[in-house]
Amino acid sequence: MIVDGKQIRPIWLDKDLKTVKIIDQRMLPHEFVIVDMTTVDHNIQAIKEMYVRGAPLIGVTAAYGVYLATLNAPDNNITDEYIKKECDRIKSSRPTAVNLAWGVDRVLEKIKKAEHNEDKITAARTEAREIEEEEAENCRKIGEYGLSLIKNISKAKNREAVNILTHCNAGWLACIEYGTATAPMYTAFDNGIDIHVWVDETRPLNQGSRLTAWELGKHGIKHTVITDNAGGHLMQHGMVDIVIVGTDRTTYTGDVANKIGTYLKALAAHDNNIPFYVALPSSTFDWTLRDGIKEIPIEERDSYEIRYVQGLDHGVIKNILIPPENSPVANFAFDVTPARLVTGFITERGICKADEKDIMRLFPEKN
Amino acid sequence: MIVDGKQIRPIWLDKDLKTVKIIDQRMLPHEFVIVDMTTVDHNIQAIKEMYVRGAPLIGVTAAYGVYLATLNAPDNNITDEYIKKECDRIKSSRPTAVNLAWGVDRVLEKIKKAEHNEDKITAARTEAREIEEEEAENCRKIGEYGLSLIKNISKAKNREAVNILTHCNAGWLACIEYGTATAPMYTAFDNGIDIHVWVDETRPLNQGSRLTAWELGKHGIKHTVITDNAGGHLMQHGMVDIVIVGTDRTTYTGDVANKIGTYLKALAAHDNNIPFYVALPSSTFDWTLRDGIKEIPIEERDSYEIRYVQGLDHGVIKNILIPPENSPVANFAFDVTPARLVTGFITERGICKADEKDIMRLFPEKN
Repeated sequence: MIVDGKQIRPIWLDKDLKTVKIIDQRMLPHEFVIVDMTTVDHNIQAIKEMYVRGAPLIGVTAAYGVYLATLNAPDNNITDEYIKKECDRIKSSRPTAVNLAWGVDRVLEKIKKAEHNEDKITAARTEAREIEEEEAENCRKIGEYGLSLIKNISKAKNREAVNILTHCNAGWLACIEYGTATAPMYTAFDNGIDIHVWVDETRPLNQGSRLTAWELGKHGIKHTVITDNAGGHLMQHGMVDIVIVGTDRTTYTGDVANKIGTYLKALAAHDNNIPFYVALPSSTFDWTLRDGIKEIPIEERDSYEIRYVQGLDHGVIKNILIPPENSPVANFAFDVTPARLVTGFITERGICKADEKDIMRLFPEKN
Repeated sequence: MIVDGKQIRPIWLDKDLKTVKIIDQRMLPHEFVIVDMTTVDHNIQAIKEMYVRGAPLIGVTAAYGVYLATLNAPDNNITDEYIKKECDRIKSSRPTAVNLAWGVDRVLEKIKKAEHNEDKITAARTEAREIEEEEAENCRKIGEYGLSLIKNISKAKNREAVNILTHCNAGWLACIEYGTATAPMYTAFDNGIDIHVWVDETRPLNQGSRLTAWELGKHGIKHTVITDNAGGHLMQHGMVDIVIVGTDRTTYTGDVANKIGTYLKALAAHDNNIPFYVALPSSTFDWTLRDGIKEIPIEERDSYEIRYVQGLDHGVIKNILIPPENSPVANFAFDVTPARLVTGFITERGICKADEKDIMRLFPEKN
């Protein structure tokens, strides 16, 4: 995507073929920092400490992590045992994102099929790049399919601005290009449709106000940052036409794990008859789980993320303490929105309802 | 209430009878600052800029504001025209809180009945004090009535900790003593019932993490600060037994205006069959409005409150910028929870359902 005139992705393999480069998203919007990863430890750190985040990008990063593992094998000998151990380490860096294991396993499969060391390295690199390109293409298609939804609302409103609410950042920063939830927004905007996006700030890490607002602003899309508390009020007063969010893991029955607070927005959309869509590449579906609320593990993160807020103080990025020093804090990172509150899914294969039958219609090979 | 061994209220008239003292709540929890008010301008500034906040405290502060007006009349001549104008200025300092006009009008009525200047001053002072004491007593009674609800849950849980979720600060800082939403918590705790409070941080001004956490901590009540996004997840997983919040204005039909985000918690409580109670003194009822969502004016506050977050940086209170410098921001301060989502009201006269008939049963004189 375009940032200040330059084409960029949130992750790419350097020309040296040894360094994977990422945008350190923790510093946005106030600083634009590129970080080099050359080891599995770098990779795990980047995922765990959220230099990179968002389901598709975590998948791609993890895939490149396996590639880095092949480059760093002791005595240049990529044994099954070694690569399995490194893959497990990468997989355990964050528990909720299903794409993580998916990205790792895809590369691992290719490595297993190669015989010689150099072939394993080449196979890993090729597959990681393949995943990267697939994710970009998936998001492009999600944008195309989502466009139809926005177009219809625009028509019904006589071309008045379509008001879209989104939570967290399911933008190109979370993916490779276009984003998932934002793909229909970029595509609609690029097609000349008048849109305006309500951006939930998304506590505790403020991915909405820091990342989504930054992305949309760089692309010239009208947007307004709001607190996570505000969406219900906006919906009650006709100020939201459609909600589109991303997801970190979605069961094949339609339950959606996404950034904490998504469930509350889904309830409000349901209460006000506003369509609530979830945009996702099929890599985010978990084809093994039936009951999202009972079965999806919800990551609890460090209390520091709630106690301290990061922002800019006279040009310097600082972290300042909000609650009393000794008040306990709990930091659940995701929640699960039950399928009954989801209007539909926007995938790279088209739009479907949030139920097993319609999901399986789009992905018959999973039956 | 007790702070570090000292008995204190959030507002009081100094012994000199000319100075009204308040806790500057903007500085909590990191600094404990007392501010002197001697003029109507001080009073308006304190209400508008939220040195004081919370429906009952705004009412008491406004009442003392009218008293300060009587002290500051030009040529010591409290004309009807002068006092009316000052009262209108005070009333317009914040639009949503019904207690503001209520507090002002009560004192104004007493002034009108007095003939001489000194009598007017004395009448204003007496009435403002009377309102202060009434609010304290109302909150004590709210605590007594609310205690029964918590006691029943405690019994049903075999004395395991009762988990209470609250939004914003409807504590003694927002009132005079006990608080409204917190009154049942203080009373239950003082009666030896095991409770634990989930404290919504309450963006944008973080009254939950700054004020409620501070209050509860000072009183020794177990509590955990969470993001505003987390409540739904907690409720889905049986971690909340009851929700108790305050209100800034409640229609006699049961619609509840309260801090933005309250509606989302009410939806989640309803979706998970968790009782959702609103605690209020009767001064917070608006006896003129039928439809809260259509009729209660919702204050839009400065975007600065969302763009900048206040906290402590190495012992110094700072305000730091979160979103991109040029991203637009909207700051709706309240929302309205429709009566259908409210289990009941805890008032100084007892508990009632959130419908006109049951509210009128408790307040028959309003019929």
